[in-house]
Amino acid sequence: MGSSGTSSSWGLLDYKTEKYVMTRNWRVGALQRLLQLGIVAYVVGWALLAKKGYQERDLDPQISVITKLKGVSVTQIKELGNRLWDVADFVKPPQGENVFFLVTNFLVTPAQVQGKCPEHPSIPLANCWVNEDCPEGETGTHSHGIKTGQCVVFNGTHRTCEIQSWCPVESGTVPRTNALDTWDTAYFKHCRYDALSSPYCPVFGIGDLITAAGGDFEDLALLGGAVGISVHWDCDLDTGGSDCWPHYSFQLQERSYNFRTASHWWKAPGVEARSLLKLYGIRFDILVTGQAGKFGLIPTAITVGTGAAWLGVITFLCDLLLLYVDREAHFYWSTKYEEVSEGPPGFQS
Amino acid sequence: MGSSGTSSSWGLLDYKTEKYVMTRNWRVGALQRLLQLGIVAYVVGWALLAKKGYQERDLDPQISVITKLKGVSVTQIKELGNRLWDVADFVKPPQGENVFFLVTNFLVTPAQVQGKCPEHPSIPLANCWVNEDCPEGETGTHSHGIKTGQCVVFNGTHRTCEIQSWCPVESGTVPRTNALDTWDTAYFKHCRYDALSSPYCPVFGIGDLITAAGGDFEDLALLGGAVGISVHWDCDLDTGGSDCWPHYSFQLQERSYNFRTASHWWKAPGVEARSLLKLYGIRFDILVTGQAGKFGLIPTAITVGTGAAWLGVITFLCDLLLLYVDREAHFYWSTKYEEVSEGPPGFQS
Amino acid sequence: MGSSGTSSSWGLLDYKTEKYVMTRNWRVGALQRLLQLGIVAYVVGWALLAKKGYQERDLDPQISVITKLKGVSVTQIKELGNRLWDVADFVKPPQGENVFFLVTNFLVTPAQVQGKCPEHPSIPLANCWVNEDCPEGETGTHSHGIKTGQCVVFNGTHRTCEIQSWCPVESGTVPRTNALDTWDTAYFKHCRYDALSSPYCPVFGIGDLITAAGGDFEDLALLGGAVGISVHWDCDLDTGGSDCWPHYSFQLQERSYNFRTASHWWKAPGVEARSLLKLYGIRFDILVTGQAGKFGLIPTAITVGTGAAWLGVITFLCDLLLLYVDREAHFYWSTKYEEVSEGPPGFQS
Repeated sequence: MGSSGTSSSWGLLDYKTEKYVMTRNWRVGALQRLLQLGIVAYVVGWALLAKKGYQERDLDPQISVITKLKGVSVTQIKELGNRLWDVADFVKPPQGENVFFLVTNFLVTPAQVQGKCPEHPSIPLANCWVNEDCPEGETGTHSHGIKTGQCVVFNGTHRTCEIQSWCPVESGTVPRTNALDTWDTAYFKHCRYDALSSPYCPVFGIGDLITAAGGDFEDLALLGGAVGISVHWDCDLDTGGSDCWPHYSFQLQERSYNFRTASHWWKAPGVEARSLLKLYGIRFDILVTGQAGKFGLIPTAITVGTGAAWLGVITFLCDLLLLYVDREAHFYWSTKYEEVSEGPPGFQS
Repeated sequence: MGSSGTSSSWGLLDYKTEKYVMTRNWRVGALQRLLQLGIVAYVVGWALLAKKGYQERDLDPQISVITKLKGVSVTQIKELGNRLWDVADFVKPPQGENVFFLVTNFLVTPAQVQGKCPEHPSIPLANCWVNEDCPEGETGTHSHGIKTGQCVVFNGTHRTCEIQSWCPVESGTVPRTNALDTWDTAYFKHCRYDALSSPYCPVFGIGDLITAAGGDFEDLALLGGAVGISVHWDCDLDTGGSDCWPHYSFQLQERSYNFRTASHWWKAPGVEARSLLKLYGIRFDILVTGQAGKFGLIPTAITVGTGAAWLGVITFLCDLLLLYVDREAHFYWSTKYEEVSEGPPGFQS
Repeated sequence: MGSSGTSSSWGLLDYKTEKYVMTRNWRVGALQRLLQLGIVAYVVGWALLAKKGYQERDLDPQISVITKLKGVSVTQIKELGNRLWDVADFVKPPQGENVFFLVTNFLVTPAQVQGKCPEHPSIPLANCWVNEDCPEGETGTHSHGIKTGQCVVFNGTHRTCEIQSWCPVESGTVPRTNALDTWDTAYFKHCRYDALSSPYCPVFGIGDLITAAGGDFEDLALLGGAVGISVHWDCDLDTGGSDCWPHYSFQLQERSYNFRTASHWWKAPGVEARSLLKLYGIRFDILVTGQAGKFGLIPTAITVGTGAAWLGVITFLCDLLLLYVDREAHFYWSTKYEEVSEGPPGFQS
């Protein structure tokens, strides 16, 4: 388009342009060739080949994740003795979604029933000396229940407000569980993921995952944490789907993670009991992203067409450069019209 | 490209074009300048600056949501007396995913065991006079069990079909719970979201959420509902990630929401019991969307290159306009060739 | 841009171009018109109309899925007798997310308590003759517990290693449940999905789903499976949202699917019991994708502008073709300059 912008806006530019080619003005010509070469290189090398500008991309993959955990572990806590954890205990939710939670530590408050009992001293505004410190009906974001207005003895050292709650209330201290030294004969139906040797295997060792995410299992096991597992698919459907593999990466998202859950039953008609579990553990969040590229007419037309437009811009700019910057411009003006009025040698009218 | 499309398709157009510039045809010239100006304004002002046409966008963010609820509430129901709800009771699922459910009302059917009992009259086809009204083995989408073929007394006023089911069956009436007047001392570790004062704080008051979504907590608490929390990230990575903040918005998606769940235990060897809960409450669905923009060579080339192409189109159209619409076209024809055959003054051959 | 790339690089090309139009060279002219027509057809017909190239697309819909299951079924197992399943039993998780699990078969291990018992013979490395076969502390990916070092009698035919575990251990055999012949009066509040008659109705029959996914319910019910439900929205917001309907499709993702879950309670102070359920069933995964198209200035400018650039390319190529390929090129050279030096008939200088 350059020259049209040219011919219409700059009058004699077209003559001029042709002239300089005849007289082989090497400087601007070389510059122009250089720029044109650059554009062709950009279009073919970068936009088309490197960035696959000839493909239209589907950025909206349909993702369905199924997870399954295996293995057992045993924990040793003084008040509970040895406790074995199998998959039904240590995975929440059990049904294998893309977000799941692996229990590594827990605080159990067995057989709670609804009633009245002293609040735990660790709760803000729980400690008291007299009933006036415990306004009836008050509650707090972190409290276990609703204050009844009484100030009662919690233990030898503390007096706290009485609350209506699930009693007894949970104690705030996190147990330090010792995982017994068990050894796994590492029996796998399938492969096992390794970043180098088997990067496409979807079977992961929990320890490996956490190490790859830059965490330390011992630390995370005590107070929990959150780990992201990114699975990125980058598929080139033009190569018959052969170039379509997942790439895994792991991120440590959070350094502390826990939640409470309870199982309920009825001890006696009318008496509901629950066992409250505060579960510390590692939350795994599987994030699948991906794109699929396939040859498309429109992206190709746009990529190449834009390159063509740029060739025009280059020429237009070189024309301007030559006409207004080049010192020898005047010389061309003169010779220009001689040639035109004479016509080329051998075709004298 | 205009002029090439021109020269090839419209013969004398190029001469013509140059001519009109020499003779300063101001009308079409002004129109052309105006259009060219408009295109430059569009490319620079709108496509590049306003719409950031120089950036390539990543529309596929990796999203990981962790939610945590705090607080307690107490409900008053005649058949159950006061009942305290803490986080282990009122959040399902407990592990803090992006979709969670806050229990605000419930219908409990304690200690069901499998057996035979009359269907509830509210169920379609449940009412009967004689056994023939209750074909054995029949069931319905909303029925609680499988008909045994007997028509039995439900209560003083109703006779219904006997079913094999978890007995006794759930009563269809929704209790109206009274949340006791408790007051929260609003103790927060962090900030608290407010659309105006602290729009980036990720700690929300449930009441504020529902109000922002255009709902009324009292209404939703009775029969439940669904609220969407949209978190939109629009990040400009060229500014060193400084312009990368979440924007929250809230939508009321549904005006009634409930589901049933049960906890199972064994009353005696071989006798399984369950406590059935029909939970009404507010389902929160956290929808995270986002895009990240970063300078990219290809989008820039396409945006500017297309603008360049448009400049050509404009010129081409103006050429046509001048040649075929302009009344003075004839005049140009004549003067045209004089000039060409003579050459410019001072260069007579 | 053709002609500028032309005039600058091929000297006399512009003269030539005009000439051939005067002398009506029909072959290249026809070719050029044909190509130009093709480009216009591509831009208007394909890029603009068919592919809606004038729209900017939002590929990042905010998705919120609410699911609800209805109905009851009864299963017949010899050790448990008839067992009725209602929605609180057969849907996990109960709260109606986009991924849910429909229990179709199960293996119950009631009233387990933690203790020591023989491992199941089906587990790798479980069978033994002497204690030395059972190294203390060993465990495996599929084992139920931690070996204590004893080799004990499992039953008349097997001796297996004693393990610390939830006892008794789960038996590996999958029961074949017989769904009793019940009949559903198919009472629906709303419509019911049918690919032909009511393709937009969001109420699905489970059997229909699985058939549509290419599966057989009887097969899937025994060992479970995973079915994907794709919901694709393709909205054209320029038509006032009227063209905005979901399109459903179904895929059978997996042919076997199960998981374990347990409900816990306390038989006596200090004695925790659980009922272990290995649930076989069909996992439904609702995958919502969508895009919304709306008129946008930038995509329109790019689509049309690129087409314009292509018109230039075509002209440029035709020029080259004519100048260097056309046999009659020489003839044009001669006639060219006569015309120019003379000027057109009637304007002799």
